Amino acid sequence: MLPHKPIQDFVKIISLLPGIGPRQALRLAYHLLHLSPKKQQEFIRTTQGLFSKMKLCSDCFLPFEPRSSKEKLCEICRDPSRDHSVICVVEKETDLLTIEKTKKYHGVYHILGGLYSGKKKKQGASFTLPQLIQRVKRYSKSTRPIREIILALNPTSEGNLTSYYIEKAIRNLNLNIKITRLARGIPSGGEIEFADSETLINALEGRK
Amino acid sequence: MLPHKPIQDFVKIISLLPGIGPRQALRLAYHLLHLSPKKQQEFIRTTQGLFSKMKLCSDCFLPFEPRSSKEKLCEICRDPSRDHSVICVVEKETDLLTIEKTKKYHGVYHILGGLYSGKKKKQGASFTLPQLIQRVKRYSKSTRPIREIILALNPTSEGNLTSYYIEKAIRNLNLNIKITRLARGIPSGGEIEFADSETLINALEGRK
Repeated sequence: MLPHKPIQDFVKIISLLPGIGPRQALRLAYHLLHLSPKKQQEFIRTTQGLFSKMKLCSDCFLPFEPRSSKEKLCEICRDPSRDHSVICVVEKETDLLTIEKTKKYHGVYHILGGLYSGKKKKQGASFTLPQLIQRVKRYSKSTRPIREIILALNPTSEGNLTSYYIEKAIRNLNLNIKITRLARGIPSGGEIEFADSETLINALEGRK
Repeated sequence: MLPHKPIQDFVKIISLLPGIGPRQALRLAYHLLHLSPKKQQEFIRTTQGLFSKMKLCSDCFLPFEPRSSKEKLCEICRDPSRDHSVICVVEKETDLLTIEKTKKYHGVYHILGGLYSGKKKKQGASFTLPQLIQRVKRYSKSTRPIREIILALNPTSEGNLTSYYIEKAIRNLNLNIKITRLARGIPSGGEIEFADSETLINALEGRK
């Protein structure tokens, strides 16, 4: 009998979200049910606002708030002061936000929306590698071709595998595009004593 | 500039939910934005269904699916085969679900919706201790007065404090109601070697 169908439906759809398991989803459902009707409507309205006001950039897939229904590019992709010949490929928007915070990067981005893991790509968000390849091809025919692609994926096995596939796919285009990766080494404030071997080897090899 | 206002609004409302921090809320927002419009509408519809189809039981505060708009009591509270003279007080619905799974309890429940912590009650869900007191008083004037109240709150300092306050409030009613708590001891399958002192003391004191 318990939990009821509307709760089960909610749990099912909420547990598909990253980092939320069925147990937490059930707790969330019960928590939401104890909110006042006013708060519940606010919750619905805010979520609807998220969906209706935001749009994905047709070039880099960063969600943005278009000023008109015709606008297709996000603030970064339509900014003439940025260097459109350099694309920084990130897995997700929060990676982009962290890079933007440094204020040291002036190129554009591409949100990949997932990583390869073994044979399959990671589930969840839509994986935009084909769109990246299309974008690079399209730009190569324009007056502002891509000069460099920075692969800024996490240095995990999945990130490395994905970087490898992207590099291969870009090289196959024969467009003379420089492909770089973020440097590896001891993080700022880190302690050499506690660094793992791989980090230390990377730090030694990348010394300058 | 980033993240945009609709995302910020969503993060603000979502991080109020239990177990979700601002970082995870931001990740959730971006994840939802990459879903297809169809999936996004399904998400809204399911959440709306949760709110519109469910109602809180006027006696025990368990959410239930009413068969008509007049129905005020949940399946448990309107079940004549259950013992309505025993109320088991739990903090949240998931505690009730776990007790129901044992199929050994045949009384009714009261969802407290929070615990006292020091001076203040825990934030979040609405705290229904006043409603419990009202309910006990109301039933005491009826043909089926409450005989026993089982305080089934977690054996933490907050749970103990809350049990203490509830016991005091019920005793003040002078209604000759038995107040009990769940037994404490070694959990089934647990190892004595690794039991903490308090658990062992409880197990020794409660021996039979």
